[in-house]
Amino acid sequence: MIKEMVHRLREMLLFLFLAIFSKATGVKAYSRGGVIQESAAYCLSWRLAVETNNVRAWRTVPSQCLRYVEAYMLGGQYERDLNLIVDQILSYVNGIVPSSDGMDAWILDVDDTCISNVFYYRGKRYGCDPYDPAGFRAWALKGGCPAIPAVLGLFEYLVQSGFKVFLVTGRDQETLGQVTIDNLHNQGFIGYERIILRTAEFIGQSAVAYKSEIRRQLEKEGYRIWGNVGDQWSDLQGECLGNRTFKLPNPMYFVP
Amino acid sequence: MIKEMVHRLREMLLFLFLAIFSKATGVKAYSRGGVIQESAAYCLSWRLAVETNNVRAWRTVPSQCLRYVEAYMLGGQYERDLNLIVDQILSYVNGIVPSSDGMDAWILDVDDTCISNVFYYRGKRYGCDPYDPAGFRAWALKGGCPAIPAVLGLFEYLVQSGFKVFLVTGRDQETLGQVTIDNLHNQGFIGYERIILRTAEFIGQSAVAYKSEIRRQLEKEGYRIWGNVGDQWSDLQGECLGNRTFKLPNPMYFVP
Repeated sequence: MIKEMVHRLREMLLFLFLAIFSKATGVKAYSRGGVIQESAAYCLSWRLAVETNNVRAWRTVPSQCLRYVEAYMLGGQYERDLNLIVDQILSYVNGIVPSSDGMDAWILDVDDTCISNVFYYRGKRYGCDPYDPAGFRAWALKGGCPAIPAVLGLFEYLVQSGFKVFLVTGRDQETLGQVTIDNLHNQGFIGYERIILRTAEFIGQSAVAYKSEIRRQLEKEGYRIWGNVGDQWSDLQGECLGNRTFKLPNPMYFVP
Repeated sequence: MIKEMVHRLREMLLFLFLAIFSKATGVKAYSRGGVIQESAAYCLSWRLAVETNNVRAWRTVPSQCLRYVEAYMLGGQYERDLNLIVDQILSYVNGIVPSSDGMDAWILDVDDTCISNVFYYRGKRYGCDPYDPAGFRAWALKGGCPAIPAVLGLFEYLVQSGFKVFLVTGRDQETLGQVTIDNLHNQGFIGYERIILRTAEFIGQSAVAYKSEIRRQLEKEGYRIWGNVGDQWSDLQGECLGNRTFKLPNPMYFVP
């Protein structure tokens, strides 16, 4: 009798505990049960592994992470992540005293660093669909990428502080040069020293090789690269990296 | 008999109480309104920025992130993150064909890579308290750090696959050498090629300088470093890094 009561109490407590526990550890989708919860926990691990460069050369976002990446990009966390990083960059910038020779430089990537492709990637299931070069070119040709506000603020601060800002992009100069310049201009990126796009000699090269060579040339010209900001690890690896690098988040695609 | 049942009931009630308590103070405590939610969103951004090396040389965990880091370390996400990274490492390992000369090497860090200090850091408010060298030494001298299961599995797989595994740690050889060897042994880390602790000549050097020099010596001995695994960026920067590096999560402390 007592044994049975204890047994039932135990079951009830276990049930209660599991209910509370699973709610406490869940990510958001309480109503839809455990699947989305588990999936969100996995996708958070996956996003961290991508951002830390532990997962490399990935072609597509895992399909179970479609809604997770959408919520991340549009739900505020992406902006929060950017704001915290830009705050870090600004406090680093404020510790640098630019010299009067005008050779203190910063390097910013363009796509998903200065301007955003999230509305293009929305049509590509936030990266769950594989890379589509023709589709991306058509999007870029519209020149309608919005500025990423935190990075635009950083850009303006760097220019005002006397740094020479170089925008370095893997976009093809011949086909996308003018539209990219126009897009950056209409989004407020005004006052940079130079925009460097991929010319014929670099076609087919990896981003690491191409961007390293560009940075080497800038250093040869005498520029001191204080900082280097990009959303891809390939922006931040290789040679002549600059005094500090900053990795902006991008869980939608990987550029080798 | 009844005494035993009462005892078990009591244990369960305690468990229940802790579950409810941790829910009340935990990350997902929506009922207490926006403050904790905002804090969790900030702490997630902070953790990402730490793991990507955008936030550097930090001394303590932001105090508003105490419960967040606790929930992260003990609530399952830390294990999930580790498991995903170790899966990545294993698929990389499986693509390597070790040569017959016995010179294929891996480097693993010790603290919070092979064995965990989370129970020490619980007493230091998960890193919200500043680093306490004497306290940490006293903890390490107990030799009671538990293995990190995912990394123990990786370690065993590497040894079985014919790799020479080198454990490289900043712990002081003279005072912590024997206890560290014993701790690793009692946690199942058996079959490594060599454990390298900090000897007198390296005292005062940064982890980057010390570990770079150790790796340089190993390469000079002819070892090919295929992989290098650590929880600190200072394990994974500098010279002779190895063919690939893997950053394990650690939101509790930063080693320069």
